[in-house]
Amino acid sequence: MQVNGKHYRTVWLEGGLVKMINQPLIPHAFEILESAGYEETAWAIKTMVVRGAGAIGAAAGFGVAQAALGAPDGRIAAYMREAAEVIRATRPTAQNLFYAVDRVLAAAGSASAGGRRQAAVAEANAIADEDVAACQAIGQLGAEEVHDGCRILTHCNAGWLAFVDWGTALSPVYAAKRQEKKVFVFVDETRPRCQGARLTAWELCGEGIDHAIIADNAAGFYMRKGDVHMVIVGADRIAANGDVANKIGTYEKAVLAKENGIPFYVAAPTSTIDMLCPSGDDIPIEERGEDEVLCMFGLTESSELVKVRLAPDRSKARNPAFDVTPAQYVTGIITEKGIIKPDHLKSLS
Amino acid sequence: MQVNGKHYRTVWLEGGLVKMINQPLIPHAFEILESAGYEETAWAIKTMVVRGAGAIGAAAGFGVAQAALGAPDGRIAAYMREAAEVIRATRPTAQNLFYAVDRVLAAAGSASAGGRRQAAVAEANAIADEDVAACQAIGQLGAEEVHDGCRILTHCNAGWLAFVDWGTALSPVYAAKRQEKKVFVFVDETRPRCQGARLTAWELCGEGIDHAIIADNAAGFYMRKGDVHMVIVGADRIAANGDVANKIGTYEKAVLAKENGIPFYVAAPTSTIDMLCPSGDDIPIEERGEDEVLCMFGLTESSELVKVRLAPDRSKARNPAFDVTPAQYVTGIITEKGIIKPDHLKSLS
Repeated sequence: MQVNGKHYRTVWLEGGLVKMINQPLIPHAFEILESAGYEETAWAIKTMVVRGAGAIGAAAGFGVAQAALGAPDGRIAAYMREAAEVIRATRPTAQNLFYAVDRVLAAAGSASAGGRRQAAVAEANAIADEDVAACQAIGQLGAEEVHDGCRILTHCNAGWLAFVDWGTALSPVYAAKRQEKKVFVFVDETRPRCQGARLTAWELCGEGIDHAIIADNAAGFYMRKGDVHMVIVGADRIAANGDVANKIGTYEKAVLAKENGIPFYVAAPTSTIDMLCPSGDDIPIEERGEDEVLCMFGLTESSELVKVRLAPDRSKARNPAFDVTPAQYVTGIITEKGIIKPDHLKSLS
Repeated sequence: MQVNGKHYRTVWLEGGLVKMINQPLIPHAFEILESAGYEETAWAIKTMVVRGAGAIGAAAGFGVAQAALGAPDGRIAAYMREAAEVIRATRPTAQNLFYAVDRVLAAAGSASAGGRRQAAVAEANAIADEDVAACQAIGQLGAEEVHDGCRILTHCNAGWLAFVDWGTALSPVYAAKRQEKKVFVFVDETRPRCQGARLTAWELCGEGIDHAIIADNAAGFYMRKGDVHMVIVGADRIAANGDVANKIGTYEKAVLAKENGIPFYVAAPTSTIDMLCPSGDDIPIEERGEDEVLCMFGLTESSELVKVRLAPDRSKARNPAFDVTPAQYVTGIITEKGIIKPDHLKSLS
């Protein structure tokens, strides 16, 4: 998408460097971080310099390709396996990460010894390109569900920053806008990391889309008032039975949407579906550090980015990063291959 | 309750001064603010130096009494009416505020000309004392529902800081602790003002009660896991049909509790019940400033209390401060007169 008049992807490979938008700085600053090797790329995934299902996947693929590029002749496969292990250990929940690592490994493995580096790079770039194409298709298909005057609630950031371009949950919003439909987005701020208030709001500002940030607590209030026409969220992993792992709080919104008779859509490329995972209970849920809950990052009036503590020193916190929304709450999964009922995922394969 | 070994109420009248714990500073500092007149007391209510249903009520009563104390002979009734008008305009949702103002006016009105000041002060003190007694009774009655090993979720702060002493939602927790039951509290941080992370957590630290602060988004996750045995929240106003207005997000927790088969209790003195208000739809809902959502207060590493901005400059926010939980989601209302089904409120009168 456009930033200051120039087109950017969220993450890309340039020579041996993985370049990525430094997301913790948004909306306060726009900087590109350059990672010189797979270790640094893994660190960027773990610390959420790059985050979001598709963007993590692309970064992971590029990281494995970096290992191939940096390996001495004859050691390429070993270097890639090592990189794969390090990258797989960064974040447990997002399916796209494992999908991308496996694909780049397999592509290099089936190439001739002399063609491994090139095959790894080509596959990693293909994953990124497919992400863009899938997200664009999700936008076109999803926009059919978005009527003129639609008021949409979204949670977290499943916009273009969470993928390589376009995004999933926000892609139908962007497509609807280009179709000259009037849309309004309720942006859940999405504590603890505030990806809604920081990233989704920043994206919507960039696209000129009318929106209001709300405390996560206020989503139910607007649903009950009848002000929300549909909910669209992303997904980090979708199990074979249609259960959806996504940012913590998604389950709450899904239950509230059902209680209020509001359609609840999950938008995700088919690469997010893990047919080897029978149900949501089998998806590992990452628990992140307490400080994300006990503290907050923000910009002071003198434009300094600081961390402030909200809670008493002696208090502890719990911080599950994701939750599982059972399939029964999901109206449809918007994929690049069509909008599918969560109990019909087998029809895709 | 005890702070640094000394007993405090949240708000009290001393001579002509209304003294109150300065709540926006908690947990980072403990200071008493002294208000010299009803205008300052009204300002303290409006800016949430003092907040919480019962504490607002007591402060409002003391404010009207202050007007009586400050009035010239022969002008007492007029001064009190003026103060009542200013105080009634501070915050629209909490029933206790209107209840206290009306009681102090009526007490002074039925006294002889020479006894008005004394009657106003006595009535305001009686309201505060009744708040303490009611909250203590709520604790005793509510504790019967709290089993040994109970894991309780609460939202916002309906602890002693929200009342004159003891609190409502937390009073059964304090009583259970004194009965040597083991209890654990999941503390919703309660964005946007984080009364959970700041005030409830601080209270629980003071009472030595095991707890974890969670993002509001994580409450549903723990409910679905079976980790929450009951929910207890407070109330700002309860309509005649049992609908409950309370801090924004309460409705979300109530729906999630019902969906997961978890008892959902509202703890409130009977002074919170507004029998003249037929249903929750008739309760005015305050919308507060955008900055509460777009920004956050906290302590820097150099112990400075600062406001930081989370969101893009161009983004707007919506900030309803309360929501209404329909009676159908409420298991019982814990009052000083007993635990009542929300559709049986008429039995109280």
